[in-house]
Amino acid sequence: MSGGAGTRLWPLSTEAKPKQFHALGSALTMLQETGLRLCDDAGLAFAPPVIICSMRHLDEVASQLQAVSIIPSAIVLEPLARNTAAVAAIAAQIVADQFPGALALLLPADHVIQNPAAFRAVIGRAAATARKRIVTFGIEPDRPETGFGYIQRGEALDDGVFKVSRFTEKPPLALAQHYLDEGGYDWNAGIFLFAPTVMLAEMNAHRPDILKAALSALSAASREGVVIYLDHDLFAKTPSESIDVAVMEATALAAVAPCSVGWADIGSWSELWRMGPFDGAGNVTRGEVFAMDTRDSYLHADDMTIAVVGVSDLVVVASQGAVIVLPKSRSQEVKALLAGVKALRVADKP
Amino acid sequence: MSGGAGTRLWPLSTEAKPKQFHALGSALTMLQETGLRLCDDAGLAFAPPVIICSMRHLDEVASQLQAVSIIPSAIVLEPLARNTAAVAAIAAQIVADQFPGALALLLPADHVIQNPAAFRAVIGRAAATARKRIVTFGIEPDRPETGFGYIQRGEALDDGVFKVSRFTEKPPLALAQHYLDEGGYDWNAGIFLFAPTVMLAEMNAHRPDILKAALSALSAASREGVVIYLDHDLFAKTPSESIDVAVMEATALAAVAPCSVGWADIGSWSELWRMGPFDGAGNVTRGEVFAMDTRDSYLHADDMTIAVVGVSDLVVVASQGAVIVLPKSRSQEVKALLAGVKALRVADKP
Repeated sequence: MSGGAGTRLWPLSTEAKPKQFHALGSALTMLQETGLRLCDDAGLAFAPPVIICSMRHLDEVASQLQAVSIIPSAIVLEPLARNTAAVAAIAAQIVADQFPGALALLLPADHVIQNPAAFRAVIGRAAATARKRIVTFGIEPDRPETGFGYIQRGEALDDGVFKVSRFTEKPPLALAQHYLDEGGYDWNAGIFLFAPTVMLAEMNAHRPDILKAALSALSAASREGVVIYLDHDLFAKTPSESIDVAVMEATALAAVAPCSVGWADIGSWSELWRMGPFDGAGNVTRGEVFAMDTRDSYLHADDMTIAVVGVSDLVVVASQGAVIVLPKSRSQEVKALLAGVKALRVADKP
Repeated sequence: MSGGAGTRLWPLSTEAKPKQFHALGSALTMLQETGLRLCDDAGLAFAPPVIICSMRHLDEVASQLQAVSIIPSAIVLEPLARNTAAVAAIAAQIVADQFPGALALLLPADHVIQNPAAFRAVIGRAAATARKRIVTFGIEPDRPETGFGYIQRGEALDDGVFKVSRFTEKPPLALAQHYLDEGGYDWNAGIFLFAPTVMLAEMNAHRPDILKAALSALSAASREGVVIYLDHDLFAKTPSESIDVAVMEATALAAVAPCSVGWADIGSWSELWRMGPFDGAGNVTRGEVFAMDTRDSYLHADDMTIAVVGVSDLVVVASQGAVIVLPKSRSQEVKALLAGVKALRVADKP
């Protein structure tokens, strides 16, 4: 799933080039890292990936994959965004058609996984369960994070996989701390392993409207080599819902595979800071940066120089003609900044 | 005097284009403002100006003057910088040669004077004294500034002009406060009015070495229209000293004309902030800037967008491919930042 249009990392990430197409703390882009971490290893035989992305990103996806010698099974182009339930339906159908008998691993292209071997290992452990259930991967929490939903483990199944007791909303801090203290709660990473037949059956049971609409857009798609152009009008009619709400919270077949794989969904500059690496004063710097008497800050310069003195816990990012400056603690307000700048630019043009 | 190579306002001001060639809080550049404030007014008849600047800035000076229809008497090019005593000697000689009987007004091209009419009025008041003495203009202080030297007034002469009792070094804060409380102390603005014969005689009395070397560089200059190319080797041999130390602190003929003319020597970003204009939260912004929940900050964007949230008393300047971020209170450290960035760039290139 390479459909994110995230602007939480603006001005680096933009609608034209969202974060999955950037290198964040790695020489390769997040899309490339995601592809490369799913290579044949530890007895798993991964088929070439199916990429689902926005129509506007076809060239970017094709050239980034080619640069690391990944030849995709298919590149499915969304004429507009319809959330993850529609994507899951289409992915299940394509895997069923192209790789009969295989499991489907559905995962975002913009997550960090620092330990890919551990990730492949837990996929292997969950495979047997995923023949009959829809497995979601639960990240064992190391802090009372309020930015993610949690999954409570239920009855133990095989090989360290559990039935899901319940999915929770993003909790307030006190509740997140309670989950951490109590144990048995994992972060919902939005990564799924399933037999396509099970996913299609469960979606048909719980959201037949989404299933029917999404698969009709796939049936009516035009194809050119590996590229599948979903039918615009039929896909536009597909209800926009997340796979979590449409299927996972409704099905009796949800399972969770808890794991510690160095996972991160970098949803803010402060989270990128947290990943390091740190200099002696707790700063994370990228690009041409000169910092004096500066602590615990994230300083990121693209095609520009940043020079700072006497600040702490600050985010400074200069990229693509824009500079943002804000306290790390207010990283969530980048979206509001972008909205403000857009309004400013509209006002400038009579 | 347009020879400043100030980098205290980096990254806007650079050696290639120092601050006198930029517009700061005005639609015109500081050089243009300096030229235009000396137009015939209030009974004063200003001759066309003599510009003294670095050789590398000839084109910039010529085109900026032409843009505001100022035709200079001369443009004197320094092959290298030799401080203000040499400049005063050369200026005195050129005025004596080109405008016999006229007074010379020697002033930097990078000062702000918000009330040019009051400035012209004090020049008029000081003219009689300047036939026999070297008049320096003293800015009546409105705060205990530690960044300037002070001049203590002595015996009263004509028309609100005083003998100079003494020049002081830049004072510590307590002493600056004492000067302010006591009265009779003015800031040394480095602006001088004198009869060329008096200046040449006093320099001959106190620093004949500077006088002789500077005038030999002028005598040996090559000329092309109004442009005077000082002789490189002779000018290089001229001792580098300020007019204050070489003449003003030594002569018995120093006089001070106190005035309040809205003068500012913008030597830091915090001083530029102080000049306003302020938005409702005490911010000064230039260029495309979007600020949320931000107070008392200076935000300056050239050819870029700046977006900030949740900061106060901060300087953010983005210009010419560099961004600086620092507390206003540390504006004096811009030079150190620039030195650090230069070192970084050298280190980057093997």
